Amino acid sequence: MYKYKFYNIKYINKNKKKILNKIIIIKGWVKFFRNNYFLEINDGSTINNLQVIINNKKFLKKKIRIGIPLKIIGKLIKNKNDIEVYAYKIKMYGNIDKEFINKSILQNKFHSRSKLRQQLNLRFRTNLFNCIIKIRHFLFINIHNYLNLKEFIYINTPIINKNNAEGAGEVFKITTLNLLDKKSKFNCKKDLFKCKANLTVSGQLELESAMYGLGKVYTFGPVFRADNSNTKKHLSEFWMLEPEIMFYKLKDIIKLSVNLIKYLIKGTLKNCKEELNYLDEYNKRYNNCKNLINRLKNIIKKKYIKISYNKTIKLLNNIKRNIINWGDDIGSEHEKILFNIVFPYEIPIIIYNYPKKIKPFYMKLNKDKKTTKSIDILFPYIGEIIGGSERETSYNKLLDRIKKLKINIKNIMWYINLRKLGEIPHSGFGLGFDRLVQYITGMNNIRDIIPYPIYPGHIF
Amino acid sequence: MYKYKFYNIKYINKNKKKILNKIIIIKGWVKFFRNNYFLEINDGSTINNLQVIINNKKFLKKKIRIGIPLKIIGKLIKNKNDIEVYAYKIKMYGNIDKEFINKSILQNKFHSRSKLRQQLNLRFRTNLFNCIIKIRHFLFINIHNYLNLKEFIYINTPIINKNNAEGAGEVFKITTLNLLDKKSKFNCKKDLFKCKANLTVSGQLELESAMYGLGKVYTFGPVFRADNSNTKKHLSEFWMLEPEIMFYKLKDIIKLSVNLIKYLIKGTLKNCKEELNYLDEYNKRYNNCKNLINRLKNIIKKKYIKISYNKTIKLLNNIKRNIINWGDDIGSEHEKILFNIVFPYEIPIIIYNYPKKIKPFYMKLNKDKKTTKSIDILFPYIGEIIGGSERETSYNKLLDRIKKLKINIKNIMWYINLRKLGEIPHSGFGLGFDRLVQYITGMNNIRDIIPYPIYPGHIF
Repeated sequence: MYKYKFYNIKYINKNKKKILNKIIIIKGWVKFFRNNYFLEINDGSTINNLQVIINNKKFLKKKIRIGIPLKIIGKLIKNKNDIEVYAYKIKMYGNIDKEFINKSILQNKFHSRSKLRQQLNLRFRTNLFNCIIKIRHFLFINIHNYLNLKEFIYINTPIINKNNAEGAGEVFKITTLNLLDKKSKFNCKKDLFKCKANLTVSGQLELESAMYGLGKVYTFGPVFRADNSNTKKHLSEFWMLEPEIMFYKLKDIIKLSVNLIKYLIKGTLKNCKEELNYLDEYNKRYNNCKNLINRLKNIIKKKYIKISYNKTIKLLNNIKRNIINWGDDIGSEHEKILFNIVFPYEIPIIIYNYPKKIKPFYMKLNKDKKTTKSIDILFPYIGEIIGGSERETSYNKLLDRIKKLKINIKNIMWYINLRKLGEIPHSGFGLGFDRLVQYITGMNNIRDIIPYPIYPGHIF
Repeated sequence: MYKYKFYNIKYINKNKKKILNKIIIIKGWVKFFRNNYFLEINDGSTINNLQVIINNKKFLKKKIRIGIPLKIIGKLIKNKNDIEVYAYKIKMYGNIDKEFINKSILQNKFHSRSKLRQQLNLRFRTNLFNCIIKIRHFLFINIHNYLNLKEFIYINTPIINKNNAEGAGEVFKITTLNLLDKKSKFNCKKDLFKCKANLTVSGQLELESAMYGLGKVYTFGPVFRADNSNTKKHLSEFWMLEPEIMFYKLKDIIKLSVNLIKYLIKGTLKNCKEELNYLDEYNKRYNNCKNLINRLKNIIKKKYIKISYNKTIKLLNNIKRNIINWGDDIGSEHEKILFNIVFPYEIPIIIYNYPKKIKPFYMKLNKDKKTTKSIDILFPYIGEIIGGSERETSYNKLLDRIKKLKINIKNIMWYINLRKLGEIPHSGFGLGFDRLVQYITGMNNIRDIIPYPIYPGHIF
């Protein structure tokens, strides 16, 4: 056993004054090196490497390679630029496959993001992905923290279910039967669940039942869409935050969602400086996004634009005649006009009162019986990140709407029955977590902000 | 708009001195009532109801029912027992379906847990489930908090994948094709991912790749088993925590897992008193578990038993000849003997060095080439909650083992290739979150501690 203390590089950088001239242990891998004397060591705790000076004859005979894992005991000393470790003892773990490294994204030069995506298993070692994943982590943890502080209760809504919550998109089917068995017909009665089973598209319906007992609840987990969407903002598997709150009206969820967004971005600016600085620089050089940090600062200071669906349609048609009909969903091309021409302020736009025909059955109708008490929050560059509404509270109205839409009542009778507990006002929203990470990191492709992106033609 | 302030009942109970004699707003539903004058209101924030005194002629004419949602403005006053609200103004939301309530678990009397399970959508309104879900929430949040404090980075490992990480169990197959189409043969090339796709059984493999770049990582999400297991400790869909740490050895993950368990239980004892007291009482009366809180206190004080697999087999066979052969897995009947006869102290047992043939391919072999550097942590009443190991670091040994086990190399070549980055020691474990919740709440059936339990024949 060594009597020396182990520190990670992040800690050493933060506490160099305290540790200076002490003998310490570091553990990591060679990020790069100049001859065998000068090694730049990284351990994943930070993108900043620690320089190590070698003066050990036995070790100098060994083949140093990019990537090789090391344990180093040495003295932390000052050099003219900063600090470095003067190594006394070094342990090397195994060997590096040189050819493998040479073909890989670990080689010390610029690699495009699409190249990084071809080596997902190694992407974690790049500075870019280190920063993105740390910001993703920060946001993930702080969503939980924020809601926990506000006394929300986390609910694990089921991933496998038999209802298709929204008609929001195509669902994946699940089976345990042998799909290649050509003799026997597929019969879901013989399946493990003895019925058709899907992957969830939203935890919303189950979450509402939890809300009826616990008041303030949320779920935050993976949801799935089987649509064949090959775009820069769609994934087949993505993470969605869904809060649901008793006695909340539309104005309350607008407030909650805006406060949450601002809390998260404020926290990122304060706590992820190293990562944001790297991304700011990266985006300037390689990603056609000139001012990431300023964008984020702007978005926590300003009031968001709030406008009804009706007015949005009028404004769009004023810009370009007949570009959209009342009742159509607001698409990417309309979003571009809104952000570039109508409201060119780089702040989110809250659009409320969408037509019922483009929104799910559970959204509460306005008195006009045409529009719903709903919102979408659109972000510049990304589009919709949040969608929410007040929920229909009346048993009869809900049943009526479901019948008109010809939704299979059998599988959601348990949900409709919740309205037999009186007409409790309640509201909630869904926040596309991956798109939020995309916005905050400035990445223009959603496949660059999740470890293993799942999309048509691509699983791992 | 009212000028009075809204408080939830948990807050009112905690701050009654401060709020006494103030006019406040409360929102909730009728838990029960004696004639129309005395209502017990609950709002989900606590299982303790707040008594409301009605003295409003208009309101007294209305039909009060169990479950009806109300908004009440009234004065918080002292009564001989505690506090109550003297109502000035009451708003009732909709009506209650009396027949529905009468058939439901919301009726004010004892309902068995199996009855509660038949009404999952209403179960959240029971005191029992309120307490269980709040403890589940507390544990969930504090797993994230603990690991975040220790600088672990959260990784969203994919739910849909094509590798079966462990051979740990049967997998669910996923498809977008029409399973009922009798004419055409099933051809996964035509499927959305253009290959066979499964639901994950563990994030372990993908997590290791993240570990290679970030050092300390974890995943915590749903995993799936398609086995036809209808027991009190198995679910088809359950939540698993998986940390993976660079340079950690077996002793380090033993320490991490024991510290985490103790941290979580200590926190629950401190922060979930109301819930634990209720469960302690409930378990005494209805669940044949006589001393839940003492059990938990015991488990944070004592050192856990640590014993090798070899020795465990010997001890078991000493109790009952030939009850187990070397190489067999330790089953429920063996666990019973261990906890009741061999180590009857009601503390967890850490069994280490399991035979390779009952453990996954990635576990590091001991020098005997028969056993692995692995642990299972067994808990009294529940059995295995944690399983972990050091990972095989050698490319050749790993490849050799995979070939011998006839695992399809093609889909995990990306994983094997990580060993081309040198032989970095690393270890990790999986913790069955639902079983931990089961242990801490004293529930003998895992279906009682998750909102929507998914098991053979049962989805929602």
